[in-house]
Amino acid sequence: MGIVSPEEVLKINRKRSLDEFVEKVRPVVDAVRERGDSALIEFTEKFDGVKLDAIGVDREEVDRAYELVSDEIIDALEVARENIEKFHSLTSPQETFIDFDYAVLGKRYVPLESAGLYVPGGRASYPSTALMAGIPAKIAGVERVIVCTPPAKDGSVNPLTLVACDMAGVDEIYRVGGAQAIAAMAYGTETIEPVLKIAGPGNAYVTAAKILVSKDVAIDMPAGPSEILVIADETADSEIVAMDCVAQLEHDPLAVAVVLTTSEKLAEKVLEIVERTIDNENFYIAVVSSIDEAIEISNAFAPEHLELVFDGAEKAISKIKNAGSVFVGEMSGVAFGDYASGTNHILPTSGYAKMYSGLSVETFVKSITFQQLREEGVRRMGESVIRLAEAEGLKFHAQSVKKRLEKLER
Amino acid sequence: MGIVSPEEVLKINRKRSLDEFVEKVRPVVDAVRERGDSALIEFTEKFDGVKLDAIGVDREEVDRAYELVSDEIIDALEVARENIEKFHSLTSPQETFIDFDYAVLGKRYVPLESAGLYVPGGRASYPSTALMAGIPAKIAGVERVIVCTPPAKDGSVNPLTLVACDMAGVDEIYRVGGAQAIAAMAYGTETIEPVLKIAGPGNAYVTAAKILVSKDVAIDMPAGPSEILVIADETADSEIVAMDCVAQLEHDPLAVAVVLTTSEKLAEKVLEIVERTIDNENFYIAVVSSIDEAIEISNAFAPEHLELVFDGAEKAISKIKNAGSVFVGEMSGVAFGDYASGTNHILPTSGYAKMYSGLSVETFVKSITFQQLREEGVRRMGESVIRLAEAEGLKFHAQSVKKRLEKLER
Repeated sequence: MGIVSPEEVLKINRKRSLDEFVEKVRPVVDAVRERGDSALIEFTEKFDGVKLDAIGVDREEVDRAYELVSDEIIDALEVARENIEKFHSLTSPQETFIDFDYAVLGKRYVPLESAGLYVPGGRASYPSTALMAGIPAKIAGVERVIVCTPPAKDGSVNPLTLVACDMAGVDEIYRVGGAQAIAAMAYGTETIEPVLKIAGPGNAYVTAAKILVSKDVAIDMPAGPSEILVIADETADSEIVAMDCVAQLEHDPLAVAVVLTTSEKLAEKVLEIVERTIDNENFYIAVVSSIDEAIEISNAFAPEHLELVFDGAEKAISKIKNAGSVFVGEMSGVAFGDYASGTNHILPTSGYAKMYSGLSVETFVKSITFQQLREEGVRRMGESVIRLAEAEGLKFHAQSVKKRLEKLER
Repeated sequence: MGIVSPEEVLKINRKRSLDEFVEKVRPVVDAVRERGDSALIEFTEKFDGVKLDAIGVDREEVDRAYELVSDEIIDALEVARENIEKFHSLTSPQETFIDFDYAVLGKRYVPLESAGLYVPGGRASYPSTALMAGIPAKIAGVERVIVCTPPAKDGSVNPLTLVACDMAGVDEIYRVGGAQAIAAMAYGTETIEPVLKIAGPGNAYVTAAKILVSKDVAIDMPAGPSEILVIADETADSEIVAMDCVAQLEHDPLAVAVVLTTSEKLAEKVLEIVERTIDNENFYIAVVSSIDEAIEISNAFAPEHLELVFDGAEKAISKIKNAGSVFVGEMSGVAFGDYASGTNHILPTSGYAKMYSGLSVETFVKSITFQQLREEGVRRMGESVIRLAEAEGLKFHAQSVKKRLEKLER
């Protein structure tokens, strides 16, 4: 906690090894794979302290949830749903078919047939995560979208989460959490049919289980504790910068907040506010010589959330190389993106933003390429293909082209 | 081998467990991670029978390779390069910035900073794979693209592969293969700097190593033996259908070829040709009652390569739900896509086409979302975000929004 040098920011240890967790969850995953529902019930009793009567949530429980949630919250979820749907629809991948003279080539995006979403829960509940995972899956066109979420102590699922799942169009909801939920979605049980891909955030056990099953089903990305990096100049409002850091730090004792600022005065003020507001050691602030230096450090850090709070911030957009989601200007607090502005809040952490994207419609589709060659194309390309195939020692490949050339000559 | 029922097609066992291979390569991966170059040299001697003088390929060796390759082959590679580049450029993901009245929201695609490509080799050489992996990486804008490929018995790298790497714009080439190459790219050695993502096909050891390192770096997808499924009616040319199956089967003793046809006569002819041309048991042919039935089976099979050789094939494009790449009409042989038509030949096998895409520019970028809220947006959305944050028990999230609303009122 406190003021550090810019170099020290890059030494913050955010990526803890999951090896230990992988070994811990391996027997859980194996047991669910072998024994199905009975293992799910056993682990839910052991880890969540809940003796399950039913693994699945029925329609009645969802309907009841609507009655338990206030109209105000339902309206708020509706605002979020609408914006998330709009942004994700408009940024969906589009098919392309191109008429090259020798062939028509194309690429289509086709939904996965099924997807499993993990929505964390237990102590707190995260209806927003149900929206963030469910809406893109349904926009993608996934026919069967299921959610697993840990039950509360009384075996119920938080009504807010149920309502959010329903609003997102989720087809099936199961009250199981942890590594056992991931195993159930990957390999199936008597109650839960397996899915093709598992997405959504979770703790270290959930992430370790996702890594374990990723040899058999697709996963979105490994997840770690939440993070923010703020780049601010002297025009930034110290209270707003501090509060956005504190908001990030309240997620998790392992959450990290970093401020890079050109203003020593701002650094001191922000530090003072953060220190007196929250008890979390993972707050770091560094004074940099320029905004460009800050951007360079940020690109090397690859934060999950990045706030640009300096004069002319919008001009820096093209300089951002590694980040999950970027919030431009003082009004664009991370909290808006967390809930309602429309972008996704399931984002790569721990430096994974260098190679992974946040959740989107693309998470739930795969692309298929198409080609229809013209006779002219076969004539023109044939000789080249034959030569390359022969050079690679694949004589029947060459033969398959020759057969077509012969046919065209007849 | 032979004529089977349509149901039996779906029982063909294409997905062998990699567990055994994962355990075999684990010590190799660990050794490279711990001992770097010395482990690379040791394993290359042990597995490839080659005592390496240099792990890296220098410019001189690449220049010499150009002299060893005929002009005809260089021309053919150039045809391939041009078409691959054109198709992959035109199907690259495009950034979107949208002005919603409450905010400007956007999504940009930013290249990974580095990528490692595995190009199989040893007995045969696959210059085409160097093009198929290298060109999309460079179109994506990856600054550092490296290739690992196994050396020949004399320690050299096949000149064709070197030329193809060079034409694709690959920055560094290393003569290491197998699990040791994957470990080197993931964790780095004295000679090989690590990369952020590893892509490209390989045998079961390479794939197992990719799965092992995928907790630390991104990978494209698991790979298995090559496959083709052909849907054909009575108008199809039996020699062409048979030759495309044989071409697929010559890749690997484990490769699989399947024909689904409405014509019993075609089935017999194709079987006869395949049987007398190649000695590979993994050929299956089933007579179906309709093209629609064949498409349904194919969607459940999710073949790597799918050929549609029937009347009106282009009208069936939208019905294809699971496949790596689709070849429409008799002229569109898989061999064209393997080399030169422009689509990628690094494709999901073993049913993975249900959830994975073939290699593309998208393999080498990640998306970053941006948002710039307007004051109006903060006013309009603020109350909803506060309610949702409070409902999730995240009071400082709510506070961060309140601070902005207060500021706007001042």
